[in-house]
This record gives sequence, C-alpha cells and structure tokens, in this order.
Amino acid sequence: MNDNDAGRFAYNGLDRVLHEKARLGILTSLFTHVEGLTFNDIKTLCSLTDGNLSRHLQVLERENLVEIVKETGSGRPQTTCFLTDSGRQRYLDYLEELQTVLKAVAQQEQKEGQFGVGFNPA
Amino acid sequence: MNDNDAGRFAYNGLDRVLHEKARLGILTSLFTHVEGLTFNDIKTLCSLTDGNLSRHLQVLERENLVEIVKETGSGRPQTTCFLTDSGRQRYLDYLEELQTVLKAVAQQEQKEGQFGVGFNPA
Repeated sequence: MNDNDAGRFAYNGLDRVLHEKARLGILTSLFTHVEGLTFNDIKTLCSLTDGNLSRHLQVLERENLVEIVKETGSGRPQTTCFLTDSGRQRYLDYLEELQTVLKAVAQQEQKEGQFGVGFNPA
Repeated sequence: MNDNDAGRFAYNGLDRVLHEKARLGILTSLFTHVEGLTFNDIKTLCSLTDGNLSRHLQVLERENLVEIVKETGSGRPQTTCFLTDSGRQRYLDYLEELQTVLKAVAQQEQKEGQFGVGFNPA
C-alpha cells in the first residue's frame, strides 16, 4: 500500500441519501421516466409499500431531489413525482462514484487475466 | 407503465450486507488485494475508525464474506483479512445488479440523445 492510497476506498461520493437501496430504485425509476410517475406507479415499479414509499419520498423531497405535484381536478386527486434538475445532477454524480467501484474491479480482473466477466465501464 | 414492469426498479440483488457504503469499500479493497490486507491497511484505505472497521468486519465475517487471520509469531500480533471464495462470488453478483442500474441510465441517456456522459456498461 502506498501512502497516497489513503482513502482510496472511502467512496465519499456515495451520498447516503441516494445510496439507500429503495431510494436508488425510486430515483432510477424517475430518471427513466422524465414525464413523471404517479405514486402508485413508483410503488409498483419499486415493490414498495405505501408507508415505505411515503417515507422515502419525504426524504427525497426535503433534499430537493424530487418534486411532488398534487393535482386536484375532476375525479380522484393524483400525485405525480418528478426528478428535479438538481436531483438529476446529484444522481449522475453519485453514479459516477459507483463507476469507480466497477472500474477498480474491472482493473483487478484484467490483472488476473479474467476477461469477459462483464464489467466494462467506460 | 406495463404490467410486467412491476418490480423493475426493486433491485432485490442489491444485498444490504454488501450495499452498505463502508462495507462496499472494505470488500472492494479486499477484492483488489488478493494477498490480503491488514486491519490498519483497510482502516487507512477506507478512512474508517477502529471501531467502525471492527464492527463491519464482524458483520462480513459472520456472513462468511471475509476471513480474518490472526498471526501471533515473533513481534506484534497481526490481523490479516481476505475475501473468501463465496464472498468474491457474492460481491460479483452484487456488482452485476449495480450494472443494471447503470444500464437503465445509459439507455435513457441514449434515448434522450445525450451521448458521452460516460455511462457505458457492457
């Protein structure tokens, strides 16, 4: 180990708000649905209960990562969620740090001569 | 949303034992050091305190992901940690699920015509 290796595996960029498994799923579902998703859609896509999803959306809204729009027109009121611009950026920054994990593994596999395991980050 | 999209963003393969940020760092450091790492090396590489590292290593050992060897020869006793074979496999399985997150994002960026953001999983 070299001295300059200190903190090399600390992954400070793995923002805990985004790294939590359920929230990562919610954010990924919203990232891939720019038109927004209803509460029930997210619940189904992410296999979450009402209570869990509510709790995680509160965290994400407080952090200004998602915007929650409540529409009360004719018929049943509907809640639609969107990723905010800053949420999108913070999500991409987070993914960039995830890439460093995958790169470290890909490099190690190359060193060991095990090609073709499927980790081929850019 | 199609019916068969249910659970698409649940990411059940993101094993909570491995997904925890500090443990992900520890496992990645061990994956890239097949010769093993001492307790102090991991502490430095992952920027963890003694207490935190001990706690996480206990979890990883209990799950049979790491092996901890205490050498008591001449001089100071030394603790060396290794990734077990099953730990290596479980870590690779976990990374494969992470890849699905990155793939979903890469596909979305292609759809939006934003090439070159750097997410290019295999």
